[in-house]
Parts: sequence; structure tokens; C-alpha cells
Amino acid sequence: MSREMPEQLEQTKRTRIKRVPKRGSYQRSTLYQIIDEALVCHVGFVISGEPHIIPTAIARMGDHVIIHGSRVSRMIKHLQSGERACITVTHLDGMVLARSAMHHSMNYRSVVIYGVGETVEGEQKVEALDHLTEHLVPGRTSDNLRPYKRKELEATTVLKFLLDEASAKIRDEPPVDDAEDYQQEIWAGVVPLVLTPGVPQPDPKRVCDQPLPDYLMTR
Amino acid sequence: MSREMPEQLEQTKRTRIKRVPKRGSYQRSTLYQIIDEALVCHVGFVISGEPHIIPTAIARMGDHVIIHGSRVSRMIKHLQSGERACITVTHLDGMVLARSAMHHSMNYRSVVIYGVGETVEGEQKVEALDHLTEHLVPGRTSDNLRPYKRKELEATTVLKFLLDEASAKIRDEPPVDDAEDYQQEIWAGVVPLVLTPGVPQPDPKRVCDQPLPDYLMTR
Repeated sequence: MSREMPEQLEQTKRTRIKRVPKRGSYQRSTLYQIIDEALVCHVGFVISGEPHIIPTAIARMGDHVIIHGSRVSRMIKHLQSGERACITVTHLDGMVLARSAMHHSMNYRSVVIYGVGETVEGEQKVEALDHLTEHLVPGRTSDNLRPYKRKELEATTVLKFLLDEASAKIRDEPPVDDAEDYQQEIWAGVVPLVLTPGVPQPDPKRVCDQPLPDYLMTR
Repeated sequence: MSREMPEQLEQTKRTRIKRVPKRGSYQRSTLYQIIDEALVCHVGFVISGEPHIIPTAIARMGDHVIIHGSRVSRMIKHLQSGERACITVTHLDGMVLARSAMHHSMNYRSVVIYGVGETVEGEQKVEALDHLTEHLVPGRTSDNLRPYKRKELEATTVLKFLLDEASAKIRDEPPVDDAEDYQQEIWAGVVPLVLTPGVPQPDPKRVCDQPLPDYLMTR
């Protein structure tokens, strides 16, 4: 948690939740928790007045989120030039089955971040890339990974976005039915959904058999 | 599959995959398969020159995708007015662990759709909403759901987007390491990820105990 930034983010006309405002949150701790569970985000940007969205890996680093990509990618070049981005993180937590078709819903946690990217350079770039790897596969950077080559670092751009204009929206409850519908003889409730790791698949092109590392067994 | 539309979508400057083009696909059957596995999409739109992204439920209906929302939602009103949308569907299929930090990657299947929404009205609106429910929870519409009320239908807008400008991008392979790195003594491979349903949780506010329907047991 930053010492300088307030725990409660200021609402802006972009971040204020208008549909079902009770589901909105501007609490930094809530936003950070949702972001920290995310592996991918969707990055929105505007080129020639038109919307584009690209999914990409995300991690939080202090009061920023970081994304990365090829130095020559259209998205990276565009965002590096100072164009605005909208970055969204979404966890689908469950299908909500109500007694009427219309009240069916989903449980979810999402965060929408608005901002302009800042290029991460020098030592902080390596730190950010390591942080991203460690976020995506906790424990991985303690392993004996071949270090970055200079040309790899040169070919990759890391962008960070300050978390100062963002909001979360959360639905986490059973179906909300019309009072008279609770009498309907139909199963109602929530089917939870979780992104679950399967059995790790060793590289078929491996030349040496390595035991599965502990950090993958505990996943 | 449409009788009128070609199996191979025409590439446009918006849909052409430039980064790692071998991962791109414009094959209608491939796109439809990815969309048909999706429960949510991310909808991108532009207001006052700025990007916005909202996650929402999605289903394919023939050669269209459909989304829905409150008649008064900003996104719905904006898209209904003929503004362009970018709709993205993403499945994160696995974390790819390489022998160097830089070659870590993800396996994924994503589709990006460009277009303008068309309001779905009348009988097709009810059909579209039922289709959405059935897509999200297969079997659900065969159950005894309380039918739509007129005011519910009036308060809800359904939009459809023709699938004529779209592309898929797919990574589905082991790590791709530099030739000399295969000697590194480190576990490399893929940790698959799957969105998995958990144990259905009956509504705590239920007034009658209903057995879990078959269509939820087979999930």
C-alpha cells in the first residue's frame, strides 16, 4: 500500500459505477486484491477513433500495473506515445441461476483502470519482467532461468500505469428474484467457477528430465 | 454455418494479425468454436475519443454474437446509436514455462470482433435472451422458468453484431526456447488452466427444496 496515495480512490466521471452502484468499489485494497489474482487483462485503446482490445499478461507492482510486449507491436507503440488506455481485469466467479430467465446473472469481480502508460527502463525493467514472471508462476524466478539477453530486453517494452483512476465492480451473492417468484418450484442458486490448474505437461522437446518443481506441485 | 457467408473471413487492416501471424486464423469454424466456449466477452467502445471496456455475457446466434444490458446503460445506449464496438473473447488455456524468463508465455485462444450493433426486437428478442440463458447454462431453458414480463423485456436491450470482420489468435504449444537453452537443467512445459465448475450452492433464501437438476450434474 502506498504511503502517499489515499486508500479510497477518487471517483471520476470515467470510474463512477452508475449501474447498480452498490456493487462498485473505489477501495484500493479491494482493487489490488482483484488485480493480484489476475493473470491476463484486456487493454483497450483508440486508433483513428476506433476501439481496439488486446488481451495480455498483467501484474501489479506497488501502485502500478505493468504490461509488456514487443517493441514493435502496434498496441505497445501506440500506448508508449502517450495515448490513453483502459485496462480491465475480470474474474468470472459463478453462474447465478434465478427462478426467472431475466434474473439470471453472473458473480464476478472486475476492475477497470484508466490511464496513460509510462515506459519502464533500466534496472526497473528487469525487475518488472521478473516480477511479472513471478506473479504469473509464483516460485519460478527462484529457479535457474537463463538470464535476459541484451537484445531480448531491447526487443521488449514494459509499460506501467499508475493506479489512480480505477474502480471495481463486484457481484457476489445468490440470485435476487422477485418476491413472488421464490415459490417457483425450480432449483436456484450459484454454480461457482474457478480457473483451475491441470496436470503440468513437461516439454516434449526436453533433453533432460527434470523433476516437477515444488512451486508447481503446490499450485 | 451460414449458407451465404464465406468460411474464410476476409482480412481487413483491423483484423490482420501482425505479431506472429502464424497464430492468426480467419476461419469461421475456428472463430465460432472459440466464441461458443465463452461465457463472457470484453466490449470496447469509444466515448469522447477515450477507450472504455466492459465485461459482459456473450453468446453466438448463427452468424452474430449477442450481448444484452439495461436499456439505460451507457454502453448499451452508445452502441445502439451506431458507434463501433470491438468485442474480444479470451480463453487462457495454460501457463508456458520456458528455460529463459523471456520465453515464458501463455497458451490462449482469443477472438477479436469489429462491428456495429443492431438492436434485436420482437420475437427475436425473446429468442435471443433464451438463447443466451441456454448458452450460459445448457439445459436451463427446459426448466420451468418464470416467463419474461413485458416490463422486463422493455427494460432490457439486446444487441447483435454480425461476424463478418473478426480474427482469432491461438497459441497452443510447448515452450519455444532458444536452441542452446534446451540444455538448461530446469523443468519446462505447460501448466494447463481450465475454468472449472464447483459444487452448486442452493439459494439460501429458497422456500422449497428442489433437487439439483440433471443439467447441472453433468457439468
